[in-house]
Amino acid sequence: MSEIDELRATVETLAAKVRALEDQVEIMQLVAQYGPAVDSGSGDAAAALWTEDGAFDAVPHLEMRGRDDIAGMVHGPGHQSLILNGCGHVLTVPHIVVDGDEATGRSYALNIRWDADADRFRVARVSANTWRWKRTSHGWRIAERINANLDGTAEHRAMLAPPADDRPTP
Amino acid sequence: MSEIDELRATVETLAAKVRALEDQVEIMQLVAQYGPAVDSGSGDAAAALWTEDGAFDAVPHLEMRGRDDIAGMVHGPGHQSLILNGCGHVLTVPHIVVDGDEATGRSYALNIRWDADADRFRVARVSANTWRWKRTSHGWRIAERINANLDGTAEHRAMLAPPADDRPTP
Amino acid sequence: MSEIDELRATVETLAAKVRALEDQVEIMQLVAQYGPAVDSGSGDAAAALWTEDGAFDAVPHLEMRGRDDIAGMVHGPGHQSLILNGCGHVLTVPHIVVDGDEATGRSYALNIRWDADADRFRVARVSANTWRWKRTSHGWRIAERINANLDGTAEHRAMLAPPADDRPTP
Repeated sequence: MSEIDELRATVETLAAKVRALEDQVEIMQLVAQYGPAVDSGSGDAAAALWTEDGAFDAVPHLEMRGRDDIAGMVHGPGHQSLILNGCGHVLTVPHIVVDGDEATGRSYALNIRWDADADRFRVARVSANTWRWKRTSHGWRIAERINANLDGTAEHRAMLAPPADDRPTP
Repeated sequence: MSEIDELRATVETLAAKVRALEDQVEIMQLVAQYGPAVDSGSGDAAAALWTEDGAFDAVPHLEMRGRDDIAGMVHGPGHQSLILNGCGHVLTVPHIVVDGDEATGRSYALNIRWDADADRFRVARVSANTWRWKRTSHGWRIAERINANLDGTAEHRAMLAPPADDRPTP
Repeated sequence: MSEIDELRATVETLAAKVRALEDQVEIMQLVAQYGPAVDSGSGDAAAALWTEDGAFDAVPHLEMRGRDDIAGMVHGPGHQSLILNGCGHVLTVPHIVVDGDEATGRSYALNIRWDADADRFRVARVSANTWRWKRTSHGWRIAERINANLDGTAEHRAMLAPPADDRPTP
C-alpha cells in the first residue's frame, strides 16, 4: 500500500470513531432538551424531539402517538397545572447503544414538584425510561420513549435490564 | 485536486468535528465540577470555574460578580452551614449550544439536604439554570450562571425555553 | 518535512484527541450502566462493570471486593427488598480525570425509594462518590468506587474536593 493509501485508511478509521462519538453526544443532548422543553411549556419544541410518528408512553395513563399528541400533552390542563405550580422533569444521561441508524437506551426521570403548603419540594415520580432513537435527515430523533414508575412493579424495573448482547464482556 | 489535497480537506473537516465534540465534553465536565467543588467547601476551585469577572445569580438572594464573590459565598456562613449539616448540589448535564468562542445552556440543579431530625434527606430546591460560557486561553469557563427556583414563577420556567434558532427542525 | 509527513502528524494529533474523547464518553457510559443494572436486579451485569478484583465501598456498611461480592450484594436480601419495594439508584455524570490507562472521578448518587404508605417517593440517600477506573483489554472498568452519605460527616464531603493538580488554572 502506498504511503497516501495508508494514511487514507487511518483517516477513515478515525472518521468512524468520530461518527460514533457524535452519535453518543448528539443523543445525550437530544435527551437533555426534554426537561427544559416541557418545563417551559414549549410543546412544539418538545414534540420536535420525536420523529413525526414517534411514540411516548407515560405508563399507565398516557399513550401518545405522533408529535401532535406530545405537544397536546404539554399544552393540556394536566401538564399546565404542573408547571404553573412549579415542577422539574429531571432526566439522567442514558446508557446508549447505537446500531447503525437506530439506537436504544435506558435512563431515569425524576418528576419533582413544588409543594407550597409544605414549603418544600417533593419527588412525585422516579421512573424507568427506555428509549428508541432513529437517525433522520435532521439528526437523531426519539422514535419511542416509555416512562414507568419504579414503584415495585416487576415489569417496570425489568425495563432497566441490560440488553443481552451489550453486557460488558466479563 | 491532488490526492493529498483531497485527504487534507477530509482531515480538516474531521478536525472541525473533533473540536465541536471537545467543546461539548469540556463544557459538560466544567459543569460536573461545580457540585463537588462547593459541597467540599473548595471555594477557590469553585470560583476558578468562572471567568475572572464571571457572574452568578442565585435568584432572588445573591448576585455574585467576579471570582471573589463566588469564593466568598462558598466560604460564607450560609453555605458552610449547609455543608456542615450535609448537602448535595446535584446538577444535570445541560443542553449546550456552542457558537464560536461562546456557548449557552440550560439545565437543572437540585439542592438536597440532610434532615437529621427526620432521619431523611429533603429536596430544598429544584431550579432552572441558564448558562453562558466563554472559551478562554485556559479552556471553557462560566461567564454567567442564573439559578432560579421552579416554584411556579413564570420568569423562572421561561428560562428553560429553547433558543428560537436552536429548535430542532420539524 | 514532506507534505505527507505533515499531514500524518496532523492526523496523529487528531487521533490523540479522539482517544481522549472516547475515554470520557466511555467512562460516562460505564457509570450510566450502574443504576439500570442494580435496579433491574442484574447482578452479573453490575459486577461486570468492575475489574475482576474491583472494590466497592458503601460506607459504612458494605466492603465489597471482587465481582462475586458485587453480584452477591445485588442478589442479596437487602437490595432485593429495595427493588421489590420500588427504588431508583440515580447517578450523575462524574468529573473525570484520565491519566493514561487509569482515571479518577467524583460524582453523586441518589437513592430514592417508593413509600407506598405515604403514596410518595423519598430521598433515602444523597452520597459523595469517588471512582478509580482502569483501562482493560475489554475497555474501561471500575477499579474502585466509594459511596458515602453527605450527612455532614467531614470525611465524606472531603471526598468531593478537586484533585490538587486538576484545579482549573486561574
